[in-house]
Amino acid sequence: MGLIKGYLPILEWGAKYNSKTFSNDMIVALIVTMMLIPQSLAYAILAGLPAEVGLYASMAPLIMYAIFGTSRALAVGPVAVASLMTAAAAGQLASQGTPEYLGAAVALAMVSGLLLIAMGFLKLGFLANFLSHPVIAGFITASGLQIAAGQLGPVLGIHAEGESFLDIVISLWHTISGTHLITAAIGIGSLIFLFWVRKGLKPLLVRFGLREKMADILVKIGPVVAIILTIVIVAGLGLADKGVKIVGKVPGGLPKVAMPPLDFALWMKILVPALLISIVGYVESISVALTLAAKKRQRVDPDQELIALGASNVGSAISGGFPVTGGFARSVVNFEAGAETPAAGAFTAVGIALVTLFLTPLLFFLPKAALAATIIVAVMGLVDMKALKHAWSYSKTDFAAMAVTILVTLWKGVEAGLIAGVGLSIFLHLYRTSRPHVAVLGQVPGTEHFLNVKRHEVITDPGILSIRVDASLYFPNARFLEDTINNAVAENPDIKHLILVCPAVNTIDLSALESLEAINLRLKDSGIKLHLSEVKGPVMDKLKDTHLLHALTGKVYLTQFAAVSELRSELASEEFKITGGPMCYCTPPSDPS
Amino acid sequence: MGLIKGYLPILEWGAKYNSKTFSNDMIVALIVTMMLIPQSLAYAILAGLPAEVGLYASMAPLIMYAIFGTSRALAVGPVAVASLMTAAAAGQLASQGTPEYLGAAVALAMVSGLLLIAMGFLKLGFLANFLSHPVIAGFITASGLQIAAGQLGPVLGIHAEGESFLDIVISLWHTISGTHLITAAIGIGSLIFLFWVRKGLKPLLVRFGLREKMADILVKIGPVVAIILTIVIVAGLGLADKGVKIVGKVPGGLPKVAMPPLDFALWMKILVPALLISIVGYVESISVALTLAAKKRQRVDPDQELIALGASNVGSAISGGFPVTGGFARSVVNFEAGAETPAAGAFTAVGIALVTLFLTPLLFFLPKAALAATIIVAVMGLVDMKALKHAWSYSKTDFAAMAVTILVTLWKGVEAGLIAGVGLSIFLHLYRTSRPHVAVLGQVPGTEHFLNVKRHEVITDPGILSIRVDASLYFPNARFLEDTINNAVAENPDIKHLILVCPAVNTIDLSALESLEAINLRLKDSGIKLHLSEVKGPVMDKLKDTHLLHALTGKVYLTQFAAVSELRSELASEEFKITGGPMCYCTPPSDPS
Repeated sequence: MGLIKGYLPILEWGAKYNSKTFSNDMIVALIVTMMLIPQSLAYAILAGLPAEVGLYASMAPLIMYAIFGTSRALAVGPVAVASLMTAAAAGQLASQGTPEYLGAAVALAMVSGLLLIAMGFLKLGFLANFLSHPVIAGFITASGLQIAAGQLGPVLGIHAEGESFLDIVISLWHTISGTHLITAAIGIGSLIFLFWVRKGLKPLLVRFGLREKMADILVKIGPVVAIILTIVIVAGLGLADKGVKIVGKVPGGLPKVAMPPLDFALWMKILVPALLISIVGYVESISVALTLAAKKRQRVDPDQELIALGASNVGSAISGGFPVTGGFARSVVNFEAGAETPAAGAFTAVGIALVTLFLTPLLFFLPKAALAATIIVAVMGLVDMKALKHAWSYSKTDFAAMAVTILVTLWKGVEAGLIAGVGLSIFLHLYRTSRPHVAVLGQVPGTEHFLNVKRHEVITDPGILSIRVDASLYFPNARFLEDTINNAVAENPDIKHLILVCPAVNTIDLSALESLEAINLRLKDSGIKLHLSEVKGPVMDKLKDTHLLHALTGKVYLTQFAAVSELRSELASEEFKITGGPMCYCTPPSDPS
Repeated sequence: MGLIKGYLPILEWGAKYNSKTFSNDMIVALIVTMMLIPQSLAYAILAGLPAEVGLYASMAPLIMYAIFGTSRALAVGPVAVASLMTAAAAGQLASQGTPEYLGAAVALAMVSGLLLIAMGFLKLGFLANFLSHPVIAGFITASGLQIAAGQLGPVLGIHAEGESFLDIVISLWHTISGTHLITAAIGIGSLIFLFWVRKGLKPLLVRFGLREKMADILVKIGPVVAIILTIVIVAGLGLADKGVKIVGKVPGGLPKVAMPPLDFALWMKILVPALLISIVGYVESISVALTLAAKKRQRVDPDQELIALGASNVGSAISGGFPVTGGFARSVVNFEAGAETPAAGAFTAVGIALVTLFLTPLLFFLPKAALAATIIVAVMGLVDMKALKHAWSYSKTDFAAMAVTILVTLWKGVEAGLIAGVGLSIFLHLYRTSRPHVAVLGQVPGTEHFLNVKRHEVITDPGILSIRVDASLYFPNARFLEDTINNAVAENPDIKHLILVCPAVNTIDLSALESLEAINLRLKDSGIKLHLSEVKGPVMDKLKDTHLLHALTGKVYLTQFAAVSELRSELASEEFKITGGPMCYCTPPSDPS
């Protein structure tokens, strides 16, 4: 039962459901439905799909998440970045408007969903970690710029498209002279209205006595107002006949539920983009869920979230939708409006269904320019150039990863940008680990501690060299280790003992083991004993049965202090022998006292 | 001058050259020339090229290495694995026997050479480290198997080819019924003779009174004898007319020296295979050079070796040759025969030049079966299945990397195998680092040391939790860190202080920094102070100006002992306040004493 509850969180909160939580969740659902309608339509068009597909993707996923999700506030559905990635992937296989294009988008949702579910069951959530913070931040910023640039075409009534920000800007440059003035008036008017709603409306509402939270929520419904106003204007003035592009006939009725065709050849073709969409979507979704859960001390289970997000995408696919994920803005509205249980999401789905059943005829005269304007305003919040400055001041490699992600995304598009960012951050990490920090150690006087001779006032022994390598020993730095020890020995020709101090060595792989064997042999030829100290338990367990430990000329010590103490007295007793016994320690006979 | 000498080691040994070293080097050159002739021809044919190209690739590279190389004994030229990789890469662009195929092979040498030189100047030798020991061992074993299988066709007089071991075996299966008996007699006869030379001849020579080393060297000349014998047999019995495939006319004369065409489109196409050939060749070459140098306590400069090997390949390309590298067997012969300076290599080049000028007509009747036999015997030494067992017993991940490299190479060919091996070893490394070892620490009684509570008898304090993460904190484990600390706090609800003990933390990247900030905030909400101890110098330098250190609820301690000592007395004085002063520490009044 515990296991079933783990995979079906609905059993937990469903049992405690009552009329108060019900009425609360209903109000939340009404607000979120109003917020979702323009977003659903807009992101479907951003993904190159018919507007109704956005509505389809906003029903089943919400219900699936209500069943499987662990966050109380997360709202899933079409989001900007995943829609852009869908357009990029589907566009490589077919032209917009064809059934093949729609099929590719649905298949992307299906394959993403299956991948996410598999990752959840196999506990592969760690894959999401490969998207480092700088890469994801850079990617989201660049995607935001690309989406905003791409929507300038519809806003101005021109045809400016491209696979990347750069392509789009070039296309805009060539076509901007053909701006359609009436369209531009609607588009730019909507932009100004929506920016004003964001910046100017809230203080006004608060001044009129609204509570701050309520004002915040009302502001989020601004796009619905813009859409209603522009529909009325376009319909009233007959602007569609004057060249203003409108959404046109949106088929009503609920989507047909059907398994997408099991076209494995297609699935293999979209595997990489589907994986990227899955991971980007998951990272976005889990971050939102964790942030909101922390505020109310609720728990979110990362592995179960993979399953829930996967189920949401499979739900989207079998109801003819495209890839979805947890959106930040809508989840915050959900949270702020007081969603008590995931049922709020299910009720939102019902709201969207009612719209799909009865209100689609009203969308006929909706100008595409107004939808484009809602997208632009929504994605401007994604663009965060300050993060670049922050990264620069902390770490040049993190900055490089972020900058390359941004530049490649702007230049070559989303997939190339993500892959370049992930590849570069892994490469830079391995490069850094291949040249680890190495310190020669000395004893802090009066303590058992050994610290870097360059940073602290410490005592060293002439016959003993203690070297601490601040990294695991593994293939990228195995050769560096050999070089370092060779050089250290060359610089200290009088040493008899070399201690490799290993508190930072978390693993020793086969490559490093073979290098250590080579080092041991070479030191032996030079008359130097190799010792190890502060080897960690798990590392020692692995070394126990190796040739290295049998062939080691020296010993393995639990602590560096024990190592130096023993080797010191060993050296002293050798000194003792060489100098001919205790004589030198006695008071010489010539002493006048 | 020092800089010039660094890049031109010839200036160093050239100044000390005299008649004794000269005569010594001449004798070495004679022996190595005899060994190189059959190898050059055989590896050219293995690479799918005309036999004379092998001779071309054995002249200029030797002279270039003599000028730029730092090893006294390394002999460069065509080798088995690089020849196989050349065939795989050129075969993707053109058919064997066409001028385009030869052009691709020459371009591979050129691009490899330029890449190696660039890597040398940019000190990018660390790239070679990405080929971990298990991957390179697995790759060489699989390549050896593929080469041996591929030569069974010529040995049996059948046409069995393929891009991978598997393809070749399937092809052999289908064609073996067409075995040409006379060819097979020559081929298998050569094989038996060559194996006998390897195993049986040396003891015989030693019994006849030869010094062991001399016997070793004579054994290496066995292939020349096999070639002369089979030429005589084929020519004498007119076997070429009976269907035995012969080398045929080998154009005499020195190669024309000319820059290969600057065909950048072609160069881009072969960039990846050229890079793989460069790195595999370099790893092979530098290992041989280091092994031999260590025996005579000579120095080898890894970066200069990149330049030398690069110059050798450029030399090969401009004299119409294909990729070369330092070969193990021939370098050992060079070393054992007593090569005193790199001039021995230059004299070997002269020897090959004389053969090319005057002896090529003698090669007309050389049966291809005999050449194939020399290759099979040479590469069987590359196959080392024991390494698999060794890897299994030490580390399952290293074993997995080796096994996957072998299997993918056998199944899909050399490039796929190498890429899979390198990719998998990097992935496995990152996976391991993403779930690092974590230990809760306690104090070893009577010392300042803190060790894992699960492995040692240690003292812990009820209000303090000390956690040591045995890894650098960076993006693959940033989320794991958050999960770990959340769980640890949930399991220890009474703690007031959490100390993150960082002796194994070598870097903290931006992702981990942001995770630490989040952890600090969450712990603050739970009334727990976060402290850091044993933060290393370089890590502390980076943390100094960050938001984390300003917002940190606790302190940073130099040692874990200092941290626990201070927090203990802090907790004690709080206890003191709560329990109402010193009373509880006094003898209670009711005490009868």
